[in-house]
Amino acid sequence: MTGAVVRVRLDEELLHPSLRDPALSSIGFLNEVMNRYPEAISFAPGAPDLSHLADTDLAGYVDAYLAHVRQTRGIGPERARRLLHEYGPSAGLINDLVAAALRADGGPDVPPEAIVVTVGAQEAMLLVLRALFRDGADVLAVTSPCFPGITGAARMLDIAVAPFPESAGGPDLERLAVLCAEARSRNQRVRAVYVAPDYANPSGARMSLLDRRCLLALAEREDLLVVEDNVYGFTAPPGHELPGLKDLDETGRVVMVGSFAKVCLPGARVGFVVADQTVRGPAGDRLLAAELAALKGMTTVNTAPVCQAVVGGMLLRHGGSLAALGRARAGTYQRNMRRLLDALERHVAPVAPPGVRWNRPGGGFFVLMDLPVPADLALLSHCAERYGVLWTPMAGFHPDGGGRHRLRLSCSYLTEDRIEEGVARLARFLSRLPSHHDGAGVSAPTRTNRTSEDVTR
Amino acid sequence: MTGAVVRVRLDEELLHPSLRDPALSSIGFLNEVMNRYPEAISFAPGAPDLSHLADTDLAGYVDAYLAHVRQTRGIGPERARRLLHEYGPSAGLINDLVAAALRADGGPDVPPEAIVVTVGAQEAMLLVLRALFRDGADVLAVTSPCFPGITGAARMLDIAVAPFPESAGGPDLERLAVLCAEARSRNQRVRAVYVAPDYANPSGARMSLLDRRCLLALAEREDLLVVEDNVYGFTAPPGHELPGLKDLDETGRVVMVGSFAKVCLPGARVGFVVADQTVRGPAGDRLLAAELAALKGMTTVNTAPVCQAVVGGMLLRHGGSLAALGRARAGTYQRNMRRLLDALERHVAPVAPPGVRWNRPGGGFFVLMDLPVPADLALLSHCAERYGVLWTPMAGFHPDGGGRHRLRLSCSYLTEDRIEEGVARLARFLSRLPSHHDGAGVSAPTRTNRTSEDVTR
Repeated sequence: MTGAVVRVRLDEELLHPSLRDPALSSIGFLNEVMNRYPEAISFAPGAPDLSHLADTDLAGYVDAYLAHVRQTRGIGPERARRLLHEYGPSAGLINDLVAAALRADGGPDVPPEAIVVTVGAQEAMLLVLRALFRDGADVLAVTSPCFPGITGAARMLDIAVAPFPESAGGPDLERLAVLCAEARSRNQRVRAVYVAPDYANPSGARMSLLDRRCLLALAEREDLLVVEDNVYGFTAPPGHELPGLKDLDETGRVVMVGSFAKVCLPGARVGFVVADQTVRGPAGDRLLAAELAALKGMTTVNTAPVCQAVVGGMLLRHGGSLAALGRARAGTYQRNMRRLLDALERHVAPVAPPGVRWNRPGGGFFVLMDLPVPADLALLSHCAERYGVLWTPMAGFHPDGGGRHRLRLSCSYLTEDRIEEGVARLARFLSRLPSHHDGAGVSAPTRTNRTSEDVTR
Repeated sequence: MTGAVVRVRLDEELLHPSLRDPALSSIGFLNEVMNRYPEAISFAPGAPDLSHLADTDLAGYVDAYLAHVRQTRGIGPERARRLLHEYGPSAGLINDLVAAALRADGGPDVPPEAIVVTVGAQEAMLLVLRALFRDGADVLAVTSPCFPGITGAARMLDIAVAPFPESAGGPDLERLAVLCAEARSRNQRVRAVYVAPDYANPSGARMSLLDRRCLLALAEREDLLVVEDNVYGFTAPPGHELPGLKDLDETGRVVMVGSFAKVCLPGARVGFVVADQTVRGPAGDRLLAAELAALKGMTTVNTAPVCQAVVGGMLLRHGGSLAALGRARAGTYQRNMRRLLDALERHVAPVAPPGVRWNRPGGGFFVLMDLPVPADLALLSHCAERYGVLWTPMAGFHPDGGGRHRLRLSCSYLTEDRIEEGVARLARFLSRLPSHHDGAGVSAPTRTNRTSEDVTR
């Protein structure tokens, strides 16, 4: 006679704390709401527009890349095709193309060895954080609000995160300097600051050229590194491009994280990092990129060669220029943003109750909107069910605990017609906004958001 | 007048300690040696054989997968193709195929929701370790020698690693029990043990069926989880297959990590994890796999859909069976292993000095050899330059500091002719083995390797 089998149950409290990151559970909830209301118009995900990919011939891009490899490496077709099958170097296959593209576009001039090709920008951020942060004394400064991918990666690595405010003009550099002093007084140090200088996700904030220079000077003065994520720079209106932080970086303070998801193909999962810093050790000097490539052996070992070949082929078909790829995509995002802002003006402005305000970014994928009531998951469910429109609550983007009355609208992957209809629905929702909705767990609509004054209509 | 620009230099001591993992630097050195002697026959990398992929039509596999998706989801060709372009769910696209394959092969019977598709087995290990290990009190038990991917991932996450010996019959379970008791006496606990039950890399060790059951009983008694990596199980000679740990797991103690690199395509970078454990929390019960998928948002967000489609198509073309894919590949590895062991007997046995011994694994990719002198990087350079043959020093595989007189020979990706010629070169090298070679940093050939008695000829 055997006893009944008792299956093990794992206590959540005994798992790693990063799993209790509120951003993770709100992403889960958001997905659930989206699945529950598939007919709703969703301003929630910041996914890239895919319409230009309808006729994409992936095999054609792979072939273009293989032709390039045969030419530049002088190898036969069989050997070239074999590159797609084998692991390949951890640092990447298309580093030469990426380095050449950055140079051709007037960006940073670095050798291929200073680049690591990664599984999206997310892996690049994970590797950079892991390499640079030694122990609990090292602090990562982030703006609030901030892209949850970087704060999540930090939590996963038990790296301390210190938020400081961001205004429409970008990170508040005075507050960053204060943060550095405060950390020192606690025997910690701000090792790096994460910055998205152009149309940051989620704030849409953009740094002026002067602020970019000031940030680099501050990094020099405070001996910290800058992790630059400039995924949305390509959406700047023509003639309004600004140099990235890495373009301005003379002393090697900037580690730049890049992505092909927005300008090529999200599903390729290819990103990269530019890490041309010198690491000094007993065995001699080497590039930080070499350290990151070694670390990549502990995360994914390689970025799939076939995905790198697709992206490489796309780059080659656009004259080896990332900027050209970006220009080919930017029009859609600029049109969508104009349409979203215009529709908000026409539909929402006339009917919205006091306290409803939004910003007007000059580029990027996102508009932020403040509400007079908590923009929480309960309100989102209500809005989805009654009005058929979805958005993202901002609380998950605020490492300082703010953002509870704020939502994010993404215009990146909807058609102009859907944006128009979605905003009309949103206007109906906002015109009947309950002053106190029956949101679970959220009661008084107090403004706890320190940077709410920056979200102006 | 402006001063000269002084570029920042990062002090290695201020970077994360995992970058000083000796395994990382020896991998770097190994690559360097391989590049320096491209004509050498290399028994070093455990890369899969690629000869069967010469005529591989990647696009054909993708099409096979898309046809399956159109049928099973009832979507049109355009919507199906779009799956390749967009991010898709973090948990994966082909989970249904993987779950069905495991079931069809008589393996674990789990729902698709209990599976996460990952960027290789490496990402699966990283996610599992991150989720399960809460803080410094949780210890990971690993065999010594051990696959450096798991110890490296643990170091990257600052997880304490405790090694215990492995014999030819697999992990020493008595020592594992002692380890658990020792941890408790230090107010720590062994949270999980990493085990490769079939022809482990690098030892070639295989657990008996009895030991597998004993390990599960021990896991139950000591309240620990088992991370099973059974990448080499498919190389078992026909009729000698043993059930995996997850197959025997009645109480949910086993989290299984799988890879398609060896049976499909290394360059696809697709692996998976079976995590059907229940996690109990205030918000209700959910599967551990759901937690891992959420965490994946912080590492790579998604496994490239196009890579999943290639693997999915390969599975479909093999009747939806991983075992069938494995059988199609296993013959090569079995032949190569027989040839390697046979050539060692013919070429090395007659000429090798006393103290040269090797094991005779029944499957897998690897043979271990003990030398009477340190098998270090200096000796490897000497062997590559003078004799044109390469191998892997074992020190990097020994978390207990042993293995200094041991090397690993991989037979996985060489042809039988190259194996024959490589072993003949190895025999010349071994016949002139210096009793004290002038290896840098290694002097007396003392046996420090606790498990050397297990490597028998």
